[in-house]
Amino acid sequence: MADDELAAAVDELPLVDHHVHGALVGEVDRAGLEALLTESDRPVPAWMTQFDSQLGFAVRRWCAPVLDLPPHADAADYVARRAELGVAEVTRRLLAASGVEHFLVDAGYGGEVLLSPAEMAAVSGARVDEVVRLETVLEDLARSGVGAAEIPARFPEALAERTVDAVGLKSVVAYRFGFDFDPERPSEAEVVSAADRWLRTGGRVEDPVLLRFLLWSGVDRGLPLQLHAGYGDPDVELHRCDPLLLTRFIKLVEPRGVDLVLLHCYPYHRNAGYLAQVFPHVHFDVGLAVNHTGARSAAVVAESLELAPFAKVLFSSDACGPPELHHLGALLWRRGMRAALGERVAAGDWSTPDAVRVARMVGRDNARRLYRLERW
Amino acid sequence: MADDELAAAVDELPLVDHHVHGALVGEVDRAGLEALLTESDRPVPAWMTQFDSQLGFAVRRWCAPVLDLPPHADAADYVARRAELGVAEVTRRLLAASGVEHFLVDAGYGGEVLLSPAEMAAVSGARVDEVVRLETVLEDLARSGVGAAEIPARFPEALAERTVDAVGLKSVVAYRFGFDFDPERPSEAEVVSAADRWLRTGGRVEDPVLLRFLLWSGVDRGLPLQLHAGYGDPDVELHRCDPLLLTRFIKLVEPRGVDLVLLHCYPYHRNAGYLAQVFPHVHFDVGLAVNHTGARSAAVVAESLELAPFAKVLFSSDACGPPELHHLGALLWRRGMRAALGERVAAGDWSTPDAVRVARMVGRDNARRLYRLERW
Amino acid sequence: MADDELAAAVDELPLVDHHVHGALVGEVDRAGLEALLTESDRPVPAWMTQFDSQLGFAVRRWCAPVLDLPPHADAADYVARRAELGVAEVTRRLLAASGVEHFLVDAGYGGEVLLSPAEMAAVSGARVDEVVRLETVLEDLARSGVGAAEIPARFPEALAERTVDAVGLKSVVAYRFGFDFDPERPSEAEVVSAADRWLRTGGRVEDPVLLRFLLWSGVDRGLPLQLHAGYGDPDVELHRCDPLLLTRFIKLVEPRGVDLVLLHCYPYHRNAGYLAQVFPHVHFDVGLAVNHTGARSAAVVAESLELAPFAKVLFSSDACGPPELHHLGALLWRRGMRAALGERVAAGDWSTPDAVRVARMVGRDNARRLYRLERW
Repeated sequence: MADDELAAAVDELPLVDHHVHGALVGEVDRAGLEALLTESDRPVPAWMTQFDSQLGFAVRRWCAPVLDLPPHADAADYVARRAELGVAEVTRRLLAASGVEHFLVDAGYGGEVLLSPAEMAAVSGARVDEVVRLETVLEDLARSGVGAAEIPARFPEALAERTVDAVGLKSVVAYRFGFDFDPERPSEAEVVSAADRWLRTGGRVEDPVLLRFLLWSGVDRGLPLQLHAGYGDPDVELHRCDPLLLTRFIKLVEPRGVDLVLLHCYPYHRNAGYLAQVFPHVHFDVGLAVNHTGARSAAVVAESLELAPFAKVLFSSDACGPPELHHLGALLWRRGMRAALGERVAAGDWSTPDAVRVARMVGRDNARRLYRLERW
Repeated sequence: MADDELAAAVDELPLVDHHVHGALVGEVDRAGLEALLTESDRPVPAWMTQFDSQLGFAVRRWCAPVLDLPPHADAADYVARRAELGVAEVTRRLLAASGVEHFLVDAGYGGEVLLSPAEMAAVSGARVDEVVRLETVLEDLARSGVGAAEIPARFPEALAERTVDAVGLKSVVAYRFGFDFDPERPSEAEVVSAADRWLRTGGRVEDPVLLRFLLWSGVDRGLPLQLHAGYGDPDVELHRCDPLLLTRFIKLVEPRGVDLVLLHCYPYHRNAGYLAQVFPHVHFDVGLAVNHTGARSAAVVAESLELAPFAKVLFSSDACGPPELHHLGALLWRRGMRAALGERVAAGDWSTPDAVRVARMVGRDNARRLYRLERW
Repeated sequence: MADDELAAAVDELPLVDHHVHGALVGEVDRAGLEALLTESDRPVPAWMTQFDSQLGFAVRRWCAPVLDLPPHADAADYVARRAELGVAEVTRRLLAASGVEHFLVDAGYGGEVLLSPAEMAAVSGARVDEVVRLETVLEDLARSGVGAAEIPARFPEALAERTVDAVGLKSVVAYRFGFDFDPERPSEAEVVSAADRWLRTGGRVEDPVLLRFLLWSGVDRGLPLQLHAGYGDPDVELHRCDPLLLTRFIKLVEPRGVDLVLLHCYPYHRNAGYLAQVFPHVHFDVGLAVNHTGARSAAVVAESLELAPFAKVLFSSDACGPPELHHLGALLWRRGMRAALGERVAAGDWSTPDAVRVARMVGRDNARRLYRLERW
């Protein structure tokens, strides 16, 4: 009984996916789909299929029925049915089935291959707001022909313009350098010097001085600042993305009253829970890892509910590309929460109303408070 | 049947809480109580309550009935009932319900806000012995007006006096610096020079030379030496408190025949289990983490029973302040052990007598052997 | 039903133990056996028995019946029965009961105390192939009287000769130095200089230049290269054996098309799973840890099936010495897989045929593909 009540509450909860990217615009064949079911950017070797993974099994189990196939459908049948329905219908079905009422989209990655925030809103019927990636704003500014000496003044202006309607900011310093950076704000002279070097060579922003400049400019802007942490593609050196390496930066930001949101965090999610307990302005999620650990995500979700106060834990899918990821991010999180909280209730540790309340906090209410979404 | 036998044995086991602090002397209001239900030393933000945490839920579930309230009582009702009964009665009830027969109290922190070892004995009826914090002895010595040049000779004398009746020593080098220190004993000249700088500036001992001097003086004293490791308040930089960083210090201490006891260790408790397997003089517990992970502590307790021989694992609450922590430290550990060991018995891996024996070793017998408590 | 089908398939699966050492040649008494049931090389303290550990309990539970004793037999009875049957019969029974069809033996450690690959084949009836330890080949070459200047040319020749029939290579750089080495191939001059120093002093190869020379010579040889990672004896500094520290070396090896196999990895097996997902040439196992975590190995096995595609995970025992380790490595892995996969099937996440297929991949087929064992 109690368990049914909890299960129903979790399954029916309208979610705020507080960090996500657009769904794919175009069709993909089997090889293309497999390449997007892993964080690896290397070709899938000929002697294996990426469907033989936790995520691949989850696609066949949970997405197949949304496309009218039986659970555990063959990968070949799944890909064929996907092509038959066409990308628009597949995307429409999978986004609708996710039960997400509000997507906060990081549109700073993927360009025209992914649906824009407005397109995401149109296809899903959900509200969509934007999270702006700091590095992209600087790279766009550089393409506009700005000089190095102008960057310290011009970047904050560009950021202000770009974020008029944004609900948050995002940093990928983890990918571009790692968290073992000098946490202090760089001087203007250092920024100009680093910008000068960078503008000559071009390419992505990877200079740690510029990345720190972006972080501190983000803190000045005052919106909640998301940081990729832990698990990601082979650009990261994972041990340099342990969120604990941010401890000194976190302490320096604390007096500024700006919220920091650690994204993904796997396999360092217990470390993130510690930071969320001891620092009032630190929040975190286990997005991305939930999708890629598939059925094992129940364990990851349970581990994310240890040290952190429940008001500091968030839900995200970090889905990017195949709408299967948007759907599974929500579905696997719901299954993980049902399992983790249901176990607490069954053992007599928690009451059912408390368990339901925690699910609502993590799945929706914390994000609404943090990003001030209640105004809508 | 077998499971009932195991459950009864674990529930009735008189525990030795080998690392704990005093219970609160005075009354606390709701804000004061919440501030003590977290390792954060920051104010609890207005938009949340610390009761919405694993520990807060455990207080409402397990401490409420000890105060005659129903399980899962509202936080407001709990605080009101607490005030109604008064601190003396609340403390008496919660300590008695813990089933602890022997507390080893670190009285080097908290001063007059916490019950002294003698007061803890009086209110609980349990035997109480003392663990002496090295840093406190040096800070007390400094207040007595000692000169830097005298410290190398005077500290060992002060420590000997202060520990005449003590059963162990404690170091908080993890808080004051981290474990990434030079493991060698500093020279007398280095100690005098560092002491000279410190005595001019005052404050807590944070100089790594002095902290190393304290550790090696503790080794000379020969009592089991407890080291805070892993999880704690925001003073720690958690990644610098991984007990593996002590490996070289552990090897240097080994020929001295002095036991090292790693406290808490979360989220590095598997690392501590490794050290306890390969070094005969290393022991550890998962205290503090048990309280703060609440219902999830069953997972932490299970993870602490992997590599370490069962003779090397200990129980502690690390409770400090609210007697809820003393009670829950014991209660949650019992629940965790029942779950972890019960699962082993149910799966046919372990016999019930073996499971009962392991519970007794960890909860009581290992501490009695290590701290030579059998003499009483 | 489904679960019975899965259990039967896992239990009957002929395994490839892709990293193992020989069984003991001679008899051991109780003290000798206990000393081999831990990675510690220190004497077992008088106040404990190594039988009081996860591994000790597993020996009494699972090996006792193979020797005609009841489950959970007393340690003393177990040791007596072992002596009564004699080492030949004990070894024959335990190896046969393991259900291993093919052992890949690292014979570079243990010398004449352990059965040779040919003797392992004779006593077990299984096929045996060899994995050659790089450091041993260099140490053997040094004993032949080679000069430092000849080593850059002579080592590859010696390695080619030694590995004519080998299926893989093995590096113990984790033990001899750690993974925090310069990942680049050293120059010939650097190798000669380091070799000159080493040949004067003798002893094990511990110079990082020589260890890197061995790794890159191994890459040149082109066979799959096994690297000890994580958990091992007190020679390792465990935090310096996190496989993530190999990230740059892994990237440098990638264009060479040589497979890297991370062995053991505990407690960093989730990190290894990440590397196996993002790098096509990285594979891993949780051998050694399965034996030493005993009944808890089910959790370790489950954690090893998160990020890595199932084609990248392998089974090994890393058994060395007592044939109990060869038997338990297989038995505990089967129990862990049955539990981990059975939970997935019971929860409706996976189909039974998929679960059976994953067990076959990890237990046998991946190793057959990786080491090209299909030719037999």
